Amino acid sequence: MKDKFEFAQDLIRQAVTYVRNRMTEDLQIEEKTRFDDLVTNIDKDTQDFMVSRIQANYPDDYILGEENDLYHDVKEGHVWVLDPIDGTVNFIAQGRDFAVMIAYYEEGLGKFGLIYDVTGGNLYSGGGQFEVTCNGKPLSSYQNRPLFRQLLGANGRMYADNYLGLADFAQELLGVRVLGSAGISMSRVLEGQLFGYCSSISPWDYAAASIMGEKLGYELLTMTGEPLDYKSRQAVMFIPKAEVARVKKVIHK
Amino acid sequence: MKDKFEFAQDLIRQAVTYVRNRMTEDLQIEEKTRFDDLVTNIDKDTQDFMVSRIQANYPDDYILGEENDLYHDVKEGHVWVLDPIDGTVNFIAQGRDFAVMIAYYEEGLGKFGLIYDVTGGNLYSGGGQFEVTCNGKPLSSYQNRPLFRQLLGANGRMYADNYLGLADFAQELLGVRVLGSAGISMSRVLEGQLFGYCSSISPWDYAAASIMGEKLGYELLTMTGEPLDYKSRQAVMFIPKAEVARVKKVIHK
Repeated sequence: MKDKFEFAQDLIRQAVTYVRNRMTEDLQIEEKTRFDDLVTNIDKDTQDFMVSRIQANYPDDYILGEENDLYHDVKEGHVWVLDPIDGTVNFIAQGRDFAVMIAYYEEGLGKFGLIYDVTGGNLYSGGGQFEVTCNGKPLSSYQNRPLFRQLLGANGRMYADNYLGLADFAQELLGVRVLGSAGISMSRVLEGQLFGYCSSISPWDYAAASIMGEKLGYELLTMTGEPLDYKSRQAVMFIPKAEVARVKKVIHK
Repeated sequence: MKDKFEFAQDLIRQAVTYVRNRMTEDLQIEEKTRFDDLVTNIDKDTQDFMVSRIQANYPDDYILGEENDLYHDVKEGHVWVLDPIDGTVNFIAQGRDFAVMIAYYEEGLGKFGLIYDVTGGNLYSGGGQFEVTCNGKPLSSYQNRPLFRQLLGANGRMYADNYLGLADFAQELLGVRVLGSAGISMSRVLEGQLFGYCSSISPWDYAAASIMGEKLGYELLTMTGEPLDYKSRQAVMFIPKAEVARVKKVIHK
């Protein structure tokens, strides 16, 4: 597993270099499900680049990728979960606050995850048997702090709609931050900068953070408190395990 | 004016060093008007540090500061506007995404502004007779781009409440980002990363960005389209001058 983890770290660095080298190009932008669900040629090409490297090195492994209809159930076999650019809207509009993400599963068990904040220059990696680090520096487990001195990362629309009581819950905290990238937001949770993160996201958006968070005292659940299906887009919360009962009292069906 | 601008650049760098050196201390946090309107001892001490440097060098100048009840009308005389830590909640909860800001006025005319994104390591400065730069690199004037490929920076509560139609307007864009600091948000507008920024803020929050923005084709108005009073907290919009008429059609009284 150590070799595979090292391969994954090399791979994500190469993918980030690939994205950085192509960021100055004119983007070809396509709408997927709606006007704000966008994909660019660089998302697709970066995923292809990662897929070809994985297939060359681990020809028997499976891949679940955000782009190009690359689906495989994480519960079956050895599965790489890839998000070539998480926060594509930020990538297009801001040129910042987007991430490359990789997660690796064996028979449904998360072995390690990686989030690379491309413009911030931070690589978060670890989980499973590996310590969780940011650029090699170990991250601490969740430190209990009063809720009213913490911030929540959230999807802006879900917050505005008070989805399942999300805005009510936010009132117990200092407020919300809407950053527009699950990877960036969840890496801030792992750093202890945000209390948690609520959004409507898919397996490639949450797999890496979930595996690392497990190791640092965080839990990823649907907003109604159920385990995720690792298949569809779901409304999720990524919060400290120690606070799940408390959050469940406010976030309601 | 050139000497004063250089003094201001030295001063903001010293203030940032001062903040960085004290960031690891235990903070003394006080509530100002409400539970999420916070100030720390470092906000206050940093402002005192800046004030003493200005008074030593320009004893006849006036100061309008966020902290310590330091009020002077920007329209009268030579006035320094100081925000020692913009985004104090981010400073406390995230340890990132906060700014030190300085603006300088003579008889109500903005001469230059400076925003230092402390953890991002970016100094935005210029306006008046000075080119607007980020770390010495000139920033471009607003480049016209389709609204539906741009993002809006906003105050989370005003967005959620659809204040004056803010959320309706956001629907013409890719979405909103809630960053929790006027200085950080408006520096992203100056960089062309955000289309504009809407929030309820005070003179020390907007003075520096307003002076720099003027030079790059941006305008700062109340959300109902009036000039600001530079005295009280007001709901403002910081948007491209070329788009003011269009925005006014959607943002309504």
